[in-house]
Amino acid sequence: MKLLTCSFRWLTSLFLVVAFQAHSQSTQTYTYPPSEVVTIHSKVLNEERKVYVHCPKVDSADVNKRFPVVYLMDGDNHFALLAQYADYLSRPDVLAMPKIIIIGISNTKRTRDLTPTNSLLNYEGKPDSSSYKGSGGNENFLQFIATELMPMINKNYKTEPYKIFAGHSFGGLSSLNCLLTHPDLFDAYIAVSPSLWWNNEYLLRMTDEKLKTGSALNKMFFYSDGNEGGSNSFFHKNLLKLDATLAKKKLKGLDYLYKHYPTETHMTEPVVAYFDALRFIFKDWGKHR
Amino acid sequence: MKLLTCSFRWLTSLFLVVAFQAHSQSTQTYTYPPSEVVTIHSKVLNEERKVYVHCPKVDSADVNKRFPVVYLMDGDNHFALLAQYADYLSRPDVLAMPKIIIIGISNTKRTRDLTPTNSLLNYEGKPDSSSYKGSGGNENFLQFIATELMPMINKNYKTEPYKIFAGHSFGGLSSLNCLLTHPDLFDAYIAVSPSLWWNNEYLLRMTDEKLKTGSALNKMFFYSDGNEGGSNSFFHKNLLKLDATLAKKKLKGLDYLYKHYPTETHMTEPVVAYFDALRFIFKDWGKHR
Repeated sequence: MKLLTCSFRWLTSLFLVVAFQAHSQSTQTYTYPPSEVVTIHSKVLNEERKVYVHCPKVDSADVNKRFPVVYLMDGDNHFALLAQYADYLSRPDVLAMPKIIIIGISNTKRTRDLTPTNSLLNYEGKPDSSSYKGSGGNENFLQFIATELMPMINKNYKTEPYKIFAGHSFGGLSSLNCLLTHPDLFDAYIAVSPSLWWNNEYLLRMTDEKLKTGSALNKMFFYSDGNEGGSNSFFHKNLLKLDATLAKKKLKGLDYLYKHYPTETHMTEPVVAYFDALRFIFKDWGKHR
Repeated sequence: MKLLTCSFRWLTSLFLVVAFQAHSQSTQTYTYPPSEVVTIHSKVLNEERKVYVHCPKVDSADVNKRFPVVYLMDGDNHFALLAQYADYLSRPDVLAMPKIIIIGISNTKRTRDLTPTNSLLNYEGKPDSSSYKGSGGNENFLQFIATELMPMINKNYKTEPYKIFAGHSFGGLSSLNCLLTHPDLFDAYIAVSPSLWWNNEYLLRMTDEKLKTGSALNKMFFYSDGNEGGSNSFFHKNLLKLDATLAKKKLKGLDYLYKHYPTETHMTEPVVAYFDALRFIFKDWGKHR
């Protein structure tokens, strides 16, 4: 009987230890600000398209407020990052930009959608039929955005007219192509390391042809490159050419910024470049409040 | 009957429209990489403490892998940002750093925990009894981390020994205080705009006293400031003093980097500074793979 009492006591204290541990440490799921995945059918592209949508948290004072929108290419890569920047930089104790909506467009056929011409030439100007087959669908992709995606977003979310188009690499190429061919689609353009080598520097030539010296282009434009083969790389040389062309054109109303990140790779650059791009685009925002 | 047929036809086509819309657009919840909120009881601090935990996604090849850990102060402010950086920068197509675990420590009494001395002086050296009452608990806070938080994290998550301590403002002060008083607790230290003004520049004096010229300190240390009142601000002057002191000391093994961000505010700076700090700390990581 004594043994039993002892055991019972031991069991009781064991139970207490377990209970105390359970009390001293508890685990719950961390809740991120909610985002949505919206799938729409595109008649233009004849396929289902998936976009990620992140809206600002709205308090009672903001119930009727509407928000600028970022349309971001390569949504699978950089949507969560930009959603994070948008939330943090618009916090009441940071106030570096307004609350904005981020739309991250997920890829289906990336090369088709984000290249302005059909070309099989690689970055050295040599034929590469396997990688670039079906390229040249950027005009269609921009039509999808203008006639299908934007109306759906404007219908379902509290958008204001101000819109930003953002892309990296082929996405940067697409952003510049939109600025040249449909400048009215967006108010600001971001091209992080645009692949200006595409089709023997097709877009560099178009930039020079389409933009008439001294003409008006009331837009903001941020473009950048990283260390993509050193200071003699075709990436860096092409971005310098773009920068020189824009300087030469003296466009009225164009507010542009070129940033070179010599310590960043092609893939790390977007982290800092998207931050700098948002800071640039909203640099005067605080002054109007 | 004809009317009924018509109505029926109209109803049918309405149904088709609704069905088509339902088909052409669907919405789901976006899934962020999961994180946890762990609450533990601290005997040292005599209170419940909440920490946010983000672990890397592990594929079958990584099942037995262990990961470095970032202990981040002001977890409520910057945890989601660092979790995002950790995920993105360790992706197979980015590979700028290893997969790491982020521990974001949520605040209870911030001034108590993150200041090294009891002081009621504000940044101008004038008494401010309301804001800084109860300050000076950093040693206790570091004991909580060393004797309660770290053992709990090591027990429950796949940690490797390499650890980083990261903080902003008072959190930066706390990071430098730890480097001076318990350097062995972490392998690398991040101090984003540390509040070196604290208590008549107490930590600047301690830095000069505690670090013996030519002694060994095998650590990495990143510190920075933004535009916090211009180039003549006490923030910038103090950071320059810290930088000059470390240069003078010629410490063996200390790998340090000072970054000044003249275009960033006290609150926007952490976004780019934490990115640069991680890039700095893992700058040689790729070379060893």
